[in-house]
Amino acid sequence: MVEIKIEERILAASEELAKENAKIFKDKKVYVMNLMASPGAGKTSFILRTLEALKNKFKIAVIEGDIASQVDADKIKEHGVEAVQINTGGACHLEGNMMRKAMDVLDLGSLDLIIIENVGNLVCPAEFYLGEDLKVMILSIAEGHDKPHKYPLMFKEANVLIVNKMDLLSLTDFDMNEFEKLVFNLNPEIEMVKVSCKDGEGLQNWYDYIEMKVEERIKDEKGRNNCLD
Amino acid sequence: MVEIKIEERILAASEELAKENAKIFKDKKVYVMNLMASPGAGKTSFILRTLEALKNKFKIAVIEGDIASQVDADKIKEHGVEAVQINTGGACHLEGNMMRKAMDVLDLGSLDLIIIENVGNLVCPAEFYLGEDLKVMILSIAEGHDKPHKYPLMFKEANVLIVNKMDLLSLTDFDMNEFEKLVFNLNPEIEMVKVSCKDGEGLQNWYDYIEMKVEERIKDEKGRNNCLD
Repeated sequence: MVEIKIEERILAASEELAKENAKIFKDKKVYVMNLMASPGAGKTSFILRTLEALKNKFKIAVIEGDIASQVDADKIKEHGVEAVQINTGGACHLEGNMMRKAMDVLDLGSLDLIIIENVGNLVCPAEFYLGEDLKVMILSIAEGHDKPHKYPLMFKEANVLIVNKMDLLSLTDFDMNEFEKLVFNLNPEIEMVKVSCKDGEGLQNWYDYIEMKVEERIKDEKGRNNCLD
Repeated sequence: MVEIKIEERILAASEELAKENAKIFKDKKVYVMNLMASPGAGKTSFILRTLEALKNKFKIAVIEGDIASQVDADKIKEHGVEAVQINTGGACHLEGNMMRKAMDVLDLGSLDLIIIENVGNLVCPAEFYLGEDLKVMILSIAEGHDKPHKYPLMFKEANVLIVNKMDLLSLTDFDMNEFEKLVFNLNPEIEMVKVSCKDGEGLQNWYDYIEMKVEERIKDEKGRNNCLD
């Protein structure tokens, strides 16, 4: 076997803009999570479950990134939650400047949580900071336990790893021990949450986690406001 | 809901090089297929099944495209088949110039079939012609039936669509009628083959198809050689 290495870096041209986005989010007291996964890992189902659990506690909006179509934004809208669709027109990831356009049409000051559903892709979205507070990736059991070998950057960058479709575990040759070894070797700090969006298994752990994060942001900002009074 | 369209075209800089690759493949009498899919759709399992079925009939080599690692090339090698690993170092797809480097280390004249396993990604690989004769995409049942809405270019570009993990069909809400409607609406000419790489269902249809294609190439070239004699 012969191995050929070809170096090609994709530059994060809108990194500066993303940093400004982050300042705006903090200023407007809104917590922002960037959700990334392969096509079919269950991003939209995971968002719909999260909205059902939290929409009566927090004011939430969803930014949907897709190459084409608005099927996901339509699904979100059916749940009574505001959705902004970004069609990248071919690009395989969201960038800071696209985010800015979506931010311009949202009333940020009225929101507690923004969920960004990135383009379905385990590669490029990991390279582009959008200004978010939390990077969440989903891997489904159906994708196989060897994925940390092949997409190391995504596993390194993610703060939270949702392992979805746990209901399929016994039907596949997914080796959870091997998977956990690979993941924690790449990223010892990652929070791993095992769930099934189909039967609801494990989702309460995720709801508790994100609720805590959003409340921290709200409290922090309230504290700061009190000081300013 | 607000919809924002952002146009961004990824240019196929190595299109000319890919056309030259195609001429070289024809000249060397080797048939080339470019296999594309999301991470975890089953590309490597599908290739291993295909090698087992055809490696005694044809001389085959595999070109493995990955961002990092050589786990797939190692698996191919274990099956006694030549494998060239291309690590793209971050790029989310293969291009004509990367192919050329792989071609330089293969003895093309001795081969009947080259299988290219593209980077796991339903987006960008569809935009880059490598010089191949056949574009094959795999979608697994676990990914959901709505994917043609979101990744239309891949479905339009593919000559063959392998629907994998048919063994999971009854366990999911995958709507095959809806899926077929979406697919054939985008690409009426596409060949759809339903398989399970786990239990072998439907794979004989694929073996028959690719065997026919490789034999056509060999016969064509033999005919041409006869004329030249």
